[in-house]
Amino acid sequence: MTSSPALLTDFYQLTMLQAYFEEQMRDTAVFSLFVRRLPERRNYLLACGLDDVLTYLETLRFDDEALRYLRSLGRFSDRFLEHLEQFRFTGDVYAVAEGTPIFPHEPILEVVAPIGEGQLVETFIINQIQLQTMLASKAARVVDAAQGRRVVDFGLRRIHGFEAGLKAARAFHIAGVHATSNVAAGQAYGLELSGTMAHSYVQAHEDEYDAFRAFAQLYGDTVLLVDTYDTIAAVRKIVTLAKEMGPAFRVSGIRLDSGDLVELSFAARRVLDEAGLQRVTIFASGSLNEGEVARIVGAGAPVDGFGVGTEMGVSRDAPSLEIIYKLVEYAGQGRLKLSPGKATLPGRKQIFRVEREGQAQYDTLGRHGAHEAGRALLQPVMKNGRRLAPLMSLDDVRVYARAQLDRLPPALRALDPAPEPYLVNVSDSLARVRVEWRRALEA
Amino acid sequence: MTSSPALLTDFYQLTMLQAYFEEQMRDTAVFSLFVRRLPERRNYLLACGLDDVLTYLETLRFDDEALRYLRSLGRFSDRFLEHLEQFRFTGDVYAVAEGTPIFPHEPILEVVAPIGEGQLVETFIINQIQLQTMLASKAARVVDAAQGRRVVDFGLRRIHGFEAGLKAARAFHIAGVHATSNVAAGQAYGLELSGTMAHSYVQAHEDEYDAFRAFAQLYGDTVLLVDTYDTIAAVRKIVTLAKEMGPAFRVSGIRLDSGDLVELSFAARRVLDEAGLQRVTIFASGSLNEGEVARIVGAGAPVDGFGVGTEMGVSRDAPSLEIIYKLVEYAGQGRLKLSPGKATLPGRKQIFRVEREGQAQYDTLGRHGAHEAGRALLQPVMKNGRRLAPLMSLDDVRVYARAQLDRLPPALRALDPAPEPYLVNVSDSLARVRVEWRRALEA
Repeated sequence: MTSSPALLTDFYQLTMLQAYFEEQMRDTAVFSLFVRRLPERRNYLLACGLDDVLTYLETLRFDDEALRYLRSLGRFSDRFLEHLEQFRFTGDVYAVAEGTPIFPHEPILEVVAPIGEGQLVETFIINQIQLQTMLASKAARVVDAAQGRRVVDFGLRRIHGFEAGLKAARAFHIAGVHATSNVAAGQAYGLELSGTMAHSYVQAHEDEYDAFRAFAQLYGDTVLLVDTYDTIAAVRKIVTLAKEMGPAFRVSGIRLDSGDLVELSFAARRVLDEAGLQRVTIFASGSLNEGEVARIVGAGAPVDGFGVGTEMGVSRDAPSLEIIYKLVEYAGQGRLKLSPGKATLPGRKQIFRVEREGQAQYDTLGRHGAHEAGRALLQPVMKNGRRLAPLMSLDDVRVYARAQLDRLPPALRALDPAPEPYLVNVSDSLARVRVEWRRALEA
Repeated sequence: MTSSPALLTDFYQLTMLQAYFEEQMRDTAVFSLFVRRLPERRNYLLACGLDDVLTYLETLRFDDEALRYLRSLGRFSDRFLEHLEQFRFTGDVYAVAEGTPIFPHEPILEVVAPIGEGQLVETFIINQIQLQTMLASKAARVVDAAQGRRVVDFGLRRIHGFEAGLKAARAFHIAGVHATSNVAAGQAYGLELSGTMAHSYVQAHEDEYDAFRAFAQLYGDTVLLVDTYDTIAAVRKIVTLAKEMGPAFRVSGIRLDSGDLVELSFAARRVLDEAGLQRVTIFASGSLNEGEVARIVGAGAPVDGFGVGTEMGVSRDAPSLEIIYKLVEYAGQGRLKLSPGKATLPGRKQIFRVEREGQAQYDTLGRHGAHEAGRALLQPVMKNGRRLAPLMSLDDVRVYARAQLDRLPPALRALDPAPEPYLVNVSDSLARVRVEWRRALEA
């Protein structure tokens, strides 16, 4: 299986590109990426994925293999294929920083480019921003639910493929997750790795105790999995092991992966504490999501960390976003689509976030270049196809995201739907433009 | 971002691998991959993903970069890292063919290998088989709902990443989907490409009519998108265009992407037929899933094909499977896990499918090597780390899958949950073994 990055697109992008080429339509278009609605159980989305988008735009080329394949389809002229050979993305991009909470109708990014260029890149941009924003938004909820306890990404095995697994680990880090089990993500992004042992390791040994001893001797600081047979009996074996090993015993934690995690954590804590093993922490896993984490934390269970897998890794309660990339301006003229339920606001925009005493009050969606109250969230990040400046480091994005989240009204940080959605006003001038353009269009 | 394929795994696989190395545990283990339960709205799963698994197993190597990274973690001995440098997967694999319908507790594949090798590959195997099986299973429902009408994969933009987009297009093809919009998948797998035009193309033109004419002149055989402004008015413009272009008019279809698709398809059909444009087909898209497709087909709507995107691409109603990879035997001894709700059957297995008059009656889950009535579904596909034979071509897999699906009881092919699940018996000898091993374990 081979594939050229430039072909990671929908076929119609290429047929439209050829049409624009033949029609000599190369005026500047503005495309705006935004979500129409929040998923039912999200009060905000955490923007993520810009870095990959900019890398893609900077490096987008049709290589020989891609051109050969396109020629074989019989849909493209030689003249157009020669044009593709020279294709570069030459446009500008305005975007909110990764880690910024955003709301419906607010542009996550805007592409300003010759129309064919802006069109071709639609598929990649939607794909990456949706995936990473969806996953960061889910993870932010899990991290909030854990109230400072450690959250580890265990998702790789059931995330949709390996590329998604890598992107997920990065998005989770931005959202505040502490470590990942994904070794490739550790390598790619310098993330902290975490891992314990599997049931199979315990089962492969004649005796659970032998498995614990072998692992504890090899790794010192490690976490032992205690639910393969009888959880509390296994915790008692660890107490015995501590006595046997003496000062060499440096096991840092146990992992509970099934059963009633609240009840078992209390019982395990008691056994450990009675043996003077206060410093052995308790780590919980097994089909966890933010609701379950909140329930365990709310019960006051002595759980020090959570391994969260599939539910976070596929954003199970919201595995897609209503995210779209819309033409809002062409050749200086605002564009509107009028399909039922799919109307859009015309023209380039800016998001102004109004904050008071460190808390976001409301946003105003205004025209690009207009002056409204508040902090302008869309900033230029690419000019003529080149990044304007290196983006923040991944750790800085994480710190920035945390600060932005902390400015949201508390009701939005709750796991339940906020009683009132966050207020996003449309500025007077943008509203006026919309009416004018619509009138012109319908005239 | 770089990452070595061998590191596409969970960290604990590597720490366990080192432990097995240090403990000199290298006896043969059997790992079995299966689902515990079907998702609520699935009556069967269509196995998919084996080809990528075998390629991975054949080519799995730790390259210098991977070894350097692992060394940097300070968890692995030089001796172990030297061992990793020589690491090859040397095991055997038994699997059901891609395109085989399977049921809970039936092994999709079994890996027979030195325990460390079998353990390391868990993450990749689960990841790929879950993704591709989940997507093939969803697509089979959509194809059935369309009752012979064309189904086109429009999912790429909202599938979880590009790797998943490629794998999805392949899985969809196996499940009977006719074409994809994903150009890279067309290139990688030789799939038929399909695409129409976007709303933005229509909007970029001063006039919808100009957009239609430009596209129809350039492409001849093409599909025009009619819902940007007023759907039926747009269909009338196409009638006018047909008159204007005369014999040069070869538009093959129109696409409806919003509104009441049943009502609009009837109205559009009427307008086209009255103009003598019977050969212009109607293609529907817009948030479709198998239920919506069935509704449109059931209403007798004159829709000739469906573009299905996000719902199929993320398997929205079942975005993950309860799929697990369990140690069932080590050093010739069956292994059992007793955690609440997570019990497994020990030992190597075989699935026997009993068919009568071309219809599957029930399956028997038996011991490997036993003789039971029915067709044995698990076949050797890899021996000592090498594929035994090239797998079927992708098109042959598609034909095979269709034939297998056609043998399922009709109630299982319905979109609603079957009144009775498909019967999977446990053979007497397997049941006996389970009791014996459990008794031995608890003794």
